[in-house]
Amino acid sequence: MKNKYIAIINGPNLNRLGLRDAYHYDKAPFENTLQEIKDYLGEVCKIKYFQSNSEGAIIDIIQKSDSDNDCLGIVINPGAYAHYSYAIADAMADCYSPVIEVHISNIFEREDFRHTSVTAQGANALIAGCKRKGYLYGVMQILDLIEYEKQKESESFPF
Amino acid sequence: MKNKYIAIINGPNLNRLGLRDAYHYDKAPFENTLQEIKDYLGEVCKIKYFQSNSEGAIIDIIQKSDSDNDCLGIVINPGAYAHYSYAIADAMADCYSPVIEVHISNIFEREDFRHTSVTAQGANALIAGCKRKGYLYGVMQILDLIEYEKQKESESFPF
Amino acid sequence: MKNKYIAIINGPNLNRLGLRDAYHYDKAPFENTLQEIKDYLGEVCKIKYFQSNSEGAIIDIIQKSDSDNDCLGIVINPGAYAHYSYAIADAMADCYSPVIEVHISNIFEREDFRHTSVTAQGANALIAGCKRKGYLYGVMQILDLIEYEKQKESESFPF
Amino acid sequence: MKNKYIAIINGPNLNRLGLRDAYHYDKAPFENTLQEIKDYLGEVCKIKYFQSNSEGAIIDIIQKSDSDNDCLGIVINPGAYAHYSYAIADAMADCYSPVIEVHISNIFEREDFRHTSVTAQGANALIAGCKRKGYLYGVMQILDLIEYEKQKESESFPF
Amino acid sequence: MKNKYIAIINGPNLNRLGLRDAYHYDKAPFENTLQEIKDYLGEVCKIKYFQSNSEGAIIDIIQKSDSDNDCLGIVINPGAYAHYSYAIADAMADCYSPVIEVHISNIFEREDFRHTSVTAQGANALIAGCKRKGYLYGVMQILDLIEYEKQKESESFPF
Amino acid sequence: MKNKYIAIINGPNLNRLGLRDAYHYDKAPFENTLQEIKDYLGEVCKIKYFQSNSEGAIIDIIQKSDSDNDCLGIVINPGAYAHYSYAIADAMADCYSPVIEVHISNIFEREDFRHTSVTAQGANALIAGCKRKGYLYGVMQILDLIEYEKQKESESFPF
Amino acid sequence: MKNKYIAIINGPNLNRLGLRDAYHYDKAPFENTLQEIKDYLGEVCKIKYFQSNSEGAIIDIIQKSDSDNDCLGIVINPGAYAHYSYAIADAMADCYSPVIEVHISNIFEREDFRHTSVTAQGANALIAGCKRKGYLYGVMQILDLIEYEKQKESESFPF
Amino acid sequence: MKNKYIAIINGPNLNRLGLRDAYHYDKAPFENTLQEIKDYLGEVCKIKYFQSNSEGAIIDIIQKSDSDNDCLGIVINPGAYAHYSYAIADAMADCYSPVIEVHISNIFEREDFRHTSVTAQGANALIAGCKRKGYLYGVMQILDLIEYEKQKESESFPF
Amino acid sequence: MKNKYIAIINGPNLNRLGLRDAYHYDKAPFENTLQEIKDYLGEVCKIKYFQSNSEGAIIDIIQKSDSDNDCLGIVINPGAYAHYSYAIADAMADCYSPVIEVHISNIFEREDFRHTSVTAQGANALIAGCKRKGYLYGVMQILDLIEYEKQKESESFPF
Amino acid sequence: MKNKYIAIINGPNLNRLGLRDAYHYDKAPFENTLQEIKDYLGEVCKIKYFQSNSEGAIIDIIQKSDSDNDCLGIVINPGAYAHYSYAIADAMADCYSPVIEVHISNIFEREDFRHTSVTAQGANALIAGCKRKGYLYGVMQILDLIEYEKQKESESFPF
Amino acid sequence: MKNKYIAIINGPNLNRLGLRDAYHYDKAPFENTLQEIKDYLGEVCKIKYFQSNSEGAIIDIIQKSDSDNDCLGIVINPGAYAHYSYAIADAMADCYSPVIEVHISNIFEREDFRHTSVTAQGANALIAGCKRKGYLYGVMQILDLIEYEKQKESESFPF
Amino acid sequence: MKNKYIAIINGPNLNRLGLRDAYHYDKAPFENTLQEIKDYLGEVCKIKYFQSNSEGAIIDIIQKSDSDNDCLGIVINPGAYAHYSYAIADAMADCYSPVIEVHISNIFEREDFRHTSVTAQGANALIAGCKRKGYLYGVMQILDLIEYEKQKESESFPF
Repeated sequence: MKNKYIAIINGPNLNRLGLRDAYHYDKAPFENTLQEIKDYLGEVCKIKYFQSNSEGAIIDIIQKSDSDNDCLGIVINPGAYAHYSYAIADAMADCYSPVIEVHISNIFEREDFRHTSVTAQGANALIAGCKRKGYLYGVMQILDLIEYEKQKESESFPF
Repeated sequence: MKNKYIAIINGPNLNRLGLRDAYHYDKAPFENTLQEIKDYLGEVCKIKYFQSNSEGAIIDIIQKSDSDNDCLGIVINPGAYAHYSYAIADAMADCYSPVIEVHISNIFEREDFRHTSVTAQGANALIAGCKRKGYLYGVMQILDLIEYEKQKESESFPF
Repeated sequence: MKNKYIAIINGPNLNRLGLRDAYHYDKAPFENTLQEIKDYLGEVCKIKYFQSNSEGAIIDIIQKSDSDNDCLGIVINPGAYAHYSYAIADAMADCYSPVIEVHISNIFEREDFRHTSVTAQGANALIAGCKRKGYLYGVMQILDLIEYEKQKESESFPF
Repeated sequence: MKNKYIAIINGPNLNRLGLRDAYHYDKAPFENTLQEIKDYLGEVCKIKYFQSNSEGAIIDIIQKSDSDNDCLGIVINPGAYAHYSYAIADAMADCYSPVIEVHISNIFEREDFRHTSVTAQGANALIAGCKRKGYLYGVMQILDLIEYEKQKESESFPF
Repeated sequence: MKNKYIAIINGPNLNRLGLRDAYHYDKAPFENTLQEIKDYLGEVCKIKYFQSNSEGAIIDIIQKSDSDNDCLGIVINPGAYAHYSYAIADAMADCYSPVIEVHISNIFEREDFRHTSVTAQGANALIAGCKRKGYLYGVMQILDLIEYEKQKESESFPF
Repeated sequence: MKNKYIAIINGPNLNRLGLRDAYHYDKAPFENTLQEIKDYLGEVCKIKYFQSNSEGAIIDIIQKSDSDNDCLGIVINPGAYAHYSYAIADAMADCYSPVIEVHISNIFEREDFRHTSVTAQGANALIAGCKRKGYLYGVMQILDLIEYEKQKESESFPF
Repeated sequence: MKNKYIAIINGPNLNRLGLRDAYHYDKAPFENTLQEIKDYLGEVCKIKYFQSNSEGAIIDIIQKSDSDNDCLGIVINPGAYAHYSYAIADAMADCYSPVIEVHISNIFEREDFRHTSVTAQGANALIAGCKRKGYLYGVMQILDLIEYEKQKESESFPF
Repeated sequence: MKNKYIAIINGPNLNRLGLRDAYHYDKAPFENTLQEIKDYLGEVCKIKYFQSNSEGAIIDIIQKSDSDNDCLGIVINPGAYAHYSYAIADAMADCYSPVIEVHISNIFEREDFRHTSVTAQGANALIAGCKRKGYLYGVMQILDLIEYEKQKESESFPF
Repeated sequence: MKNKYIAIINGPNLNRLGLRDAYHYDKAPFENTLQEIKDYLGEVCKIKYFQSNSEGAIIDIIQKSDSDNDCLGIVINPGAYAHYSYAIADAMADCYSPVIEVHISNIFEREDFRHTSVTAQGANALIAGCKRKGYLYGVMQILDLIEYEKQKESESFPF
Repeated sequence: MKNKYIAIINGPNLNRLGLRDAYHYDKAPFENTLQEIKDYLGEVCKIKYFQSNSEGAIIDIIQKSDSDNDCLGIVINPGAYAHYSYAIADAMADCYSPVIEVHISNIFEREDFRHTSVTAQGANALIAGCKRKGYLYGVMQILDLIEYEKQKESESFPF
Repeated sequence: MKNKYIAIINGPNLNRLGLRDAYHYDKAPFENTLQEIKDYLGEVCKIKYFQSNSEGAIIDIIQKSDSDNDCLGIVINPGAYAHYSYAIADAMADCYSPVIEVHISNIFEREDFRHTSVTAQGANALIAGCKRKGYLYGVMQILDLIEYEKQKESESFPF
Repeated sequence: MKNKYIAIINGPNLNRLGLRDAYHYDKAPFENTLQEIKDYLGEVCKIKYFQSNSEGAIIDIIQKSDSDNDCLGIVINPGAYAHYSYAIADAMADCYSPVIEVHISNIFEREDFRHTSVTAQGANALIAGCKRKGYLYGVMQILDLIEYEKQKESESFPF
């Protein structure tokens, strides 16, 4: 498994992390967060990082990641698209690999339109408000789901 | 810190975990989950577990935990109360200690009335759909927030 | 079956039956109604009666009744909790035994907020406006459902 | 009273009972249900059965039954008309005789548009989800209301 | 009348008055407020104070107070229950004694969900935003209503 | 302070007090109410009374009162304007002096459109259902707020 | 024109006029109202009267009247169909002849669902609350519209 | 009765009748309409005409007319105020004299916000879309209501 | 199959096709459209045509067609009933044969209330805005579905 | 054109400009803004300034300005009336002269009820959030529209 | 015409056709569907196929196709964009060529958010639930519309 | 400043300006509008023009412009994205430079979905309905805001 990877996808405006309003976000560059996850993973697997402001490009990445045998799962922060992009929701729901949705801030503490996530309907789980640690928990959860699937298989085929 | 504890609070019907519909929940008893968290924590700190079906009793526990100097923070699964108990939301918002809201299943994949959480407005973060691992991530996040506060303090008073 | 029982649960303010506004409710004490049901049942089975104003206590009773092998089913009048308690709804939906929801008055003739029942989604049936006879019909329906299950079993295992 | 009757009215698509989706409905013909009620009533009174898919025809029957001195009351299953026919609701509300609304399935467990009944505002009571037994309970309730009215009269004119 | 009392009931989280966010609430302990009311009342009547976080317990207290001949009326701050507890609303509406609803802060200046009070439908009056003086005005209003009832009686039975 | 005054403003249709439907209102002329307040105030301060059916005129009075150094605060019953006049709400919110909104009847017990008050967002407090005593409590609350402000000042500048 | 006629159409439950709840309706039979209109019309034109409880039959009558050269216009009271029958609305909007909608009671004073009329969108005018005089005004308005059309024609073709 | 009068009140922008968009309104000056009504009334009674763009002034006129013994009733076209002025609605509902609401155009054929009338809840009847004839029918209806009241009186006191 | 038929059902006001507003509909009589479909079908199968303004009659036809062994499927244009007739929707959903819903105009380009179809939930497909060709496509789609079912069967029973 | 003028109308509470909350508004008196516009216009045309808190008075001014041959157009800031005054909206829509609606602050950044403008439906353009410069842009736009009309005319009548 | 073409545009996730959930979609590759259409068209005209996950790219293609003289019309399946992309709707509405919207599944049988299509407001017709045959019917309808336009022209210019 | 520039960004379908429906838009090419603005600016600063149909590309441009030291501010017409793109709204709100939103037509006069702008919440100002002059006013407003900031600075640092 150590040559496989987990895809981390950041949506619109998240390329500005570290530059944006300090209230909701840390000031460190996002590379620090990625490095922290790599340190955690060690030899377990790799990660691949993508960011795009474009709804269509995000769908492309989700589809490509899901079709790629080396991809173990997807951790995605759809940014504001979470609140209206049924097209991304469809792409996520269509995945065979696990998909974890992450938001850096607690979307339920912010404006009304952020209190719902249409894309979360296509995700396995939603993690919101754990700041950038949310990405790490998302990665951990994907590994846990893979572990769980393996166990189920070994139970089903015990000979 | 090793004599302090994190409070884990389960709301209504969650005493039936392990007995309920297998689709949303694991079949193992909840004690396993608590043990897993204790193993993770080792000497770092303890945990205290509470469960109640009563809205008022849950508010009592939140208030008592928050007033207790030994309590580092609260991981709470308010069950169905998440969708309408503004009284629990007020109690959570009133806490000085960090509060992480956890749901075992992905509330956005279930019935419409579960797509919102009024209590999440009083929490630091929401973790939904990570199955029982969500409790562990909640505990990790509390430790991370404490770490973060300590750092801020040491930065502010560097002499 | 004659040592088993049907649980009858009354929710908030229903301890005031016989004292309340005569328009919606009879003036006789609720004991008369219970006696009438006992008379109907004769040797068939017993009944156990509970009343509580507390949402949590009602959930406790539902869970305990459902886990008790001697309990054949539940007839519940959730009072005003019917209109907002998703926690009671969850407890009802979680039951293996049949659950019949009863309202003394016709909730559709009263204020707007009483025109819906969120708990009814967790019930097998709803009986509203039959005054106190509704409790008797609820008991009859539980016996009918048990009869029906027995028949199905005897059909499936005919040898 | 034994030459009088209770009217049982079935609305649209209920002529297909016994043929429709087994999930919501029994497989037996509706005649069995009517016979079961006749057996219960014995010499007490008769029943008259009507079915129509037409909103106007159902209103005609309600009006005719209510104006007929021999009719003791009405048990009606308005089918899907329950959810929007204010015209049937007006006709029901306009009756001097008692009117009991029956639904075979629990309308609160089905599609959203079935979670309310506009016709129930014109009924004395609503019985939903007791399968075909609901018709029997409706008949019982009409007899109970007549009994109750008689008692009141005898109380009022005791000499 | 001087041996009778007015019941003052505080709902969820109001045991934290004096500890909570200074913006909405004073910093003094609630005992000061009670003393101020006692000073105002002098020999007129007594007060009894209750606080509970539990919806069911609050209903219990309302019912007990209303059934107690020595209770002249109820001043209640239902806290967040005001916004969704139809069960407390029913208990309040069911009272023979006058019931005055009090909120310390102006609920119309706060979050949207606080802009309505379902319990106020069961109260004689609503006082919101007068800080803790609201409890005093509530007590004054109960005495005024009693005075008014007495006058009406003496007018009706002038001989 | 004894040459200063509190403004009492009555909105549309309140010139008919004493003439209108006895259910919601007393039968005495409003002058009695004003006299009762003057008696309470004695030498403390004066009151000035205004009534207008016109939205614009009410805004004019609010602005003039608030700009007048002799005006200590405003007690206003906006009548039906409370339910839709954002222009009066703006004028009230713009005041430096305290503003207390009063309704004679309990607006939450009446028609649906009266269950909210847009003007209350611009008030310090809302008193509804205390009949005409509400005006007195409003006056008392203004004096209390002035007292409170004085105390704060004397605390801040203790030398 | 004296051999032509105006069609008067009454919808569901209006065959019970004179029998129904006296609050909204007169006690006299509807024939009196028709005679009153005939007296008014004298030799001007005739009237034809129809009543049906069936939505489809009402559409048939509207279509037949509108296609009949002898019909000058339609006065229709759609009863409860006014609140949801888009099919009758379509039939009315499709007419070349003028159509006046009449309601005996003031629909805006009654239940919420009666506060709108979807059929009125297909009518030239709506008259509600003028009791049975509304039918007369409807007839007068049709004659007025015919007069108006004639005048316009004579203006357009003055030679 | 011939020295008494019916008040005709026009609301905002209706002083522009005859100047406005020809689609909804006639081109003749409103004086013609008033003259037509006077011709109809002959010696029966007089009319008094008022127009104002001001909500407050319209309330003043309604109150003054209703308190004037010589005023037999009110025909009012509240213009756009019909759609939001609860203050005018209150004034209308408060009248002892009959009040008929008139709209020149069919408000149900125009923009969405015109499909309801909050003031109609305070009127005896609503006439919309009969062009300017609506004012005449309003006057006729007031005379009819007076006639009806007289008859009732003479029936009640037949000696 | 050539003696079997496809039922084509037209709802309310569609008997006026060719007479109605030219904007939404062609001017030719509907017989031309039926002939065009017959020409397309040739020897494949027949068609039977029904039109009714009555909701009940349409349900009767749907039920009869579906129970008739010679009926291959139903093409239905429910007209305005599409927007509110849950009774027709139930009848359509209850069919074993395929049901295709057709609207001549593009319902999404017209008034708001036409933007949804409650009956479409009971159909296999919806074709709207293809003018009268929509009926032909509906017929083609039924033949295609039958073909598809046959293929599936021959695949399942290959020997 | 230099003797003609553009009307600038300010609605409720805007007489307090320069005194109000500095967040939304400048601190300078509004005369400065008017002078700035006069400087811009020079000899082109004049301006006339009006302010009123009264809805009716604002409608009067709009009507008078629009009927005045010397008035070239209207720049109006309806203040809070923008959010509910359909009567002002009607007056604006009824104007032959161009009408530009101006808001000093960005209404979309403020409370929810300010996110829509019902009066803007009657305006040619809406300018919000350009602070007081918005009035200048409004004046510029009126001149531009006049220029545009002139050009169209000269194009239409080129000889 | 045989060198011209019809554009077929597939929106987001439709590149996964043949791979996705078998319930809504066929298992064959989309090329088969395109071939089937080409077979139908023969020499009549060509087709051009586009697919993109990007909203912007889809608008680009619509604009380019519409501006291309060789393009006869557009058959588009906007996928999930149908439910919220007003930008695609604008592009479609802006086309001179006919545009037919196709959905493979019956959008009215699926989740609530799929029950409306904002893009259909910009289309000539909507075909939903005919599986992949819908694309063929869309192509047929475009040819029919072209035929119809030609006929109209030849009728208009008969010499 | 003369080497700096203001970015003008046009959203979806606005590349068709001059080609689209003449009702909402001018017929001249957009280059004329840009030239007019350049003429106005003269030596003050430059402008840069962008157009894209893609949501993601528009976010890219906003971010790049805002990060570019030479960019003084942004004038953006988000086209239909204004009504649903929270992602563009976030990008706009995230800018340090001023952002002015422009719509050529008065969005409040058009379809309902255009009556709100979610992106305007991230803008400094909204200008709608000033036709293409709106772009010029947007540019003027940016210069004004820069002037204002400069003044504030010089006031703050007066030495």
